[in-house]
This record gives sequence, C-alpha cells and structure tokens, in this order.
Amino acid sequence: MNDGAPAHPDGHGHVDVAKVTLSEEIVDRASVASTDVAEYATWLGDDALILAQQLGWWISRAPELEEDIALGNIALDLIGHARSFLHYAGTATGRSEDDLAYFRDEHEFRSVHLVEQPNGDFAHTIVRQLLMSLYLFELYRELAGSADATLAAVAGKAEKEVDYHRDHASQWILRLALGTEESRERLLVALSDLWPYVEELFRDEPLHDVLAGIAVRPSGLREAFDRVLTDLFAEAELARPRTPTTSGGGRRGQHSEYLGYLLTEMQVLARRHPGATW
Amino acid sequence: MNDGAPAHPDGHGHVDVAKVTLSEEIVDRASVASTDVAEYATWLGDDALILAQQLGWWISRAPELEEDIALGNIALDLIGHARSFLHYAGTATGRSEDDLAYFRDEHEFRSVHLVEQPNGDFAHTIVRQLLMSLYLFELYRELAGSADATLAAVAGKAEKEVDYHRDHASQWILRLALGTEESRERLLVALSDLWPYVEELFRDEPLHDVLAGIAVRPSGLREAFDRVLTDLFAEAELARPRTPTTSGGGRRGQHSEYLGYLLTEMQVLARRHPGATW
Repeated sequence: MNDGAPAHPDGHGHVDVAKVTLSEEIVDRASVASTDVAEYATWLGDDALILAQQLGWWISRAPELEEDIALGNIALDLIGHARSFLHYAGTATGRSEDDLAYFRDEHEFRSVHLVEQPNGDFAHTIVRQLLMSLYLFELYRELAGSADATLAAVAGKAEKEVDYHRDHASQWILRLALGTEESRERLLVALSDLWPYVEELFRDEPLHDVLAGIAVRPSGLREAFDRVLTDLFAEAELARPRTPTTSGGGRRGQHSEYLGYLLTEMQVLARRHPGATW
Repeated sequence: MNDGAPAHPDGHGHVDVAKVTLSEEIVDRASVASTDVAEYATWLGDDALILAQQLGWWISRAPELEEDIALGNIALDLIGHARSFLHYAGTATGRSEDDLAYFRDEHEFRSVHLVEQPNGDFAHTIVRQLLMSLYLFELYRELAGSADATLAAVAGKAEKEVDYHRDHASQWILRLALGTEESRERLLVALSDLWPYVEELFRDEPLHDVLAGIAVRPSGLREAFDRVLTDLFAEAELARPRTPTTSGGGRRGQHSEYLGYLLTEMQVLARRHPGATW
C-alpha cells in the first residue's frame, strides 16, 4: 500500500515548511486588523487550528508509516494557516497567536462544528478532511482576491496547500469506496454521520455583509463545492447522504460537547506555564 | 517567544518532505539486505521510529504554535528515516516497513532505552532530543561512508536533517539553562534523569564487528559527541551529570516498562485491521 499519498504539487513538489513556520513573512507586522476583520480572521484561524489538532492525533497511529507522514504534514500545514490568521487577529487587541490559541475558553472559539467531530475510524477522519478541504480550497481561492492584503496573502499561500489536502482526501475516498465491502460500508457510515455538518460551512453571517469585499460569502462557494463533490461521488459510485442538517452555531461560540475535551488537551501545558517560560 | 526555532538549514532552507516520504527513491528496490545488515538496519530504524512516536505526542500540545510545528517536523523527519531503514531491513525477509513497525512485539524491537524514556515535561523531551540528535549526527556522518550503498545513502540524507534537529535542541538547552530559575532547575532534573541512558548509545555489540566497514562502531563516536556537548554545556553554564549508568539491553530486545505502552498505542489500529485495507 504505497500508492496512497499523491505527490505534493506546490510548484517544486514539496511542503515548504519554512514558509509555513514564518507567518511573520506573510503577515506584515505593520498591518493591524480592525475589530471586524480580527473576528473574521479568528473564524478562519480556529477552523484550521481545531482540524490540525484532530489530525495530529494520527501521527504514528495511522495504519501505514506513509500515511503518518501525510496526515502529519497536513496537520502542520493547518497549524501554519492557523498561526497566520490568529497572528493577524491578535493585532486588533495586542495579543499573540499563542494567547489566542491557548488562553481562550470554549465559548470564545469560532470554529464550525464539522472540525470538532471526533476522529472516529480512519473513514471518519478522511470524510471530515475531504469536506473541509473542498470547502477551504474554494474559500481560500476567493479570499486570495480580498481587499484586505493580509488575508489575501495568507489565503493565496494556503490555497496551494489545501489543494494538495483535497487531492489526498479524494484519493482515499476512492480507495475506501472501491476497496473492500468493509471499507465501503465504513465510508458510507462516515459520510452519513458527517453530512449534517456541511450546511454550517456555507451559512452567511451578518459579519460577511459588514466585510463585503474583504470576507468571502460562503453561500457563494456552495455551487463549486457541490460540483467537485458530484464528480468525485460519481467516480466513487457514491450517492449524496440524506441525513438532516444540524443547527451549527460555531461562529457564535456555541459548540458541541467535543470541543471542550479538545481544548483541554491542547491548552493544558500552556496554561500550566503561562508565557511558556516557566 | 518567536525566536525558538532556527531556520532549517538543509540547503534551500526548508524540510523537503517529498524526499522524506519517498524512501523508495533512496532505497534501491533491487538491493536486498543480508540477515546481518537487516538486523543493523532494524536497530537504526527502531531508534528513529520510537523517538518519532514520542515527539508526535507534542503536536498541538507544545506551549507555542511555532514549537508544535518544529517538533512535528522533526517527528516527520524521523518517521522518514525509520521508513527507509525498516524498508531495507524488510528486504531480507520479504516484509514491508509497515509489517516491521506494526507487527513486531516488544522483544523484537531493537531501540535503545533512551528513546523509550517518557516525554516528561518539555525539558525532558528537549534533553532526550539533544542527546539523540548529537549521537545520530555523528553516527549518520560516519555511516554515510559505509560500504553498504543503501545505508550510506539513507544516512547521508538523514545527516542533514539531524543537523537541524541538534541545532533546534541546542537552542532550547540554552534558553532553558539561561532562562528563569525554574526553567534551569527543570533542565537540571531532566539532564540528571536521562544521563544514565547515554552510555548504551556508545556500546559496541558483536554485530558491529561482524559488519566492519558497513556498520559504525558507536564507541568511536563518543569523543566527538563529548566535544560538542562540552562546548554546549560551557555556553549554558551546565556541569555534566554524575548519575550512574543503566544496563541497557535494547539491542537484544530487553526494554524498559515504557516501550510496551508506546507500542500498544502505535500498533493498535494497524493490528485491528491487518493489511490496512479493512
């Protein structure tokens, strides 16, 4: 099973970690986000951060060493995106990205419910990853043209990485769908379990109107998302699930029971040693 | 605290993940390891694999997002090295690197005791990382001249990455040693706790004689290791610990109580679904 991970197609064929690490290179230290832009950047950063935290769990637990590396790289890409967005968000209030990641409480997080959903079996992780990657790709592609230069720069770079993430997830969907009877069955269960959380991704909020020209209205991304999914599902011989939609509320700080556990694990060390300097 | 991670100095300034992932590019599929070389490659692979597994735990738990990314990248480098060495080891018996990682029992693992030692607090993780990186750097540098072309190629590539790892760990040692009273105290405890496991790294085994010209005699690496450590300790105003040496035995499959837990966590999913195809 060495055919799972497609090559990373970001130009020179590998993840450019130095660029991921140095969010400072992208987020101009001189730009300060307005309160509204900071709120929007927090939404973007929290989605990436929580999804990264989930994927990190798989490192050295995936059923193949190669997949360990693939999921690990995706997690690191997402932490990089989260850092950039949260760094920018923090400029509005003089907080660092670490302050925002480690010292906010559950109701202050703005992530969608889909990223909070448990890793479950590998099929659940991959379905969550597919849905988020398809959504984020369309979102970042639009956001790369934002009137806010910082958001545009971060999104433009993230778009290339998320393009790889969606390719990785799509390859796995095909493998699981067209693999064994059990892999297909597990995929169908995962699709059915996670489908209810798709709707929230595309729900416009008042902030999107306030930030017209800067933020991307998610409702406008749905058609492209559906088109890609339809093609993939046709190839994988899958039907779209009919499970009903949940109410969401992540953008207003209303979360499922899962987020609290995630945050506890993520924040415990930073909170035990505030400032991380002992 | 954004000054912790030095830039990745591997030529073009970033981790080249595509190269890490595709161990096949390095491990010539035509070369088959002899039984002795396979055993030696297993020693090398197991050290890297267990250390990677330990570091993976820190992803999204480190006290800074930047450090999440740094430790995550180091973990992925190490999984890459493990894959290459274990792939080569497996050629002797027709097993894949995944077979060796996920379907061997504790007594079949050949890793040294140092890599099994718990993550502890961040200081313990960093001290373990320093000691292993200094050792692996000297080892790979020598092994890059091995008469076995496959071992030489894998080591030559790994050497550059491990050079970054030792730089990363050294920077942290200085920060902790010269930081606050508490950070220095924690560092001293970690050094004292882990020092007993250093000796095992440099102990020659009969296999090293059998593989003269192919394997590297670890006793010959001790002087260079000590020299680097002496310089670093001088800069960090640290004295060498006087804690006694443990008996070791990792190369013969005798392990501390910690390895069993690590392996359970690492292997549970692969074993639940053998072949990883459901």
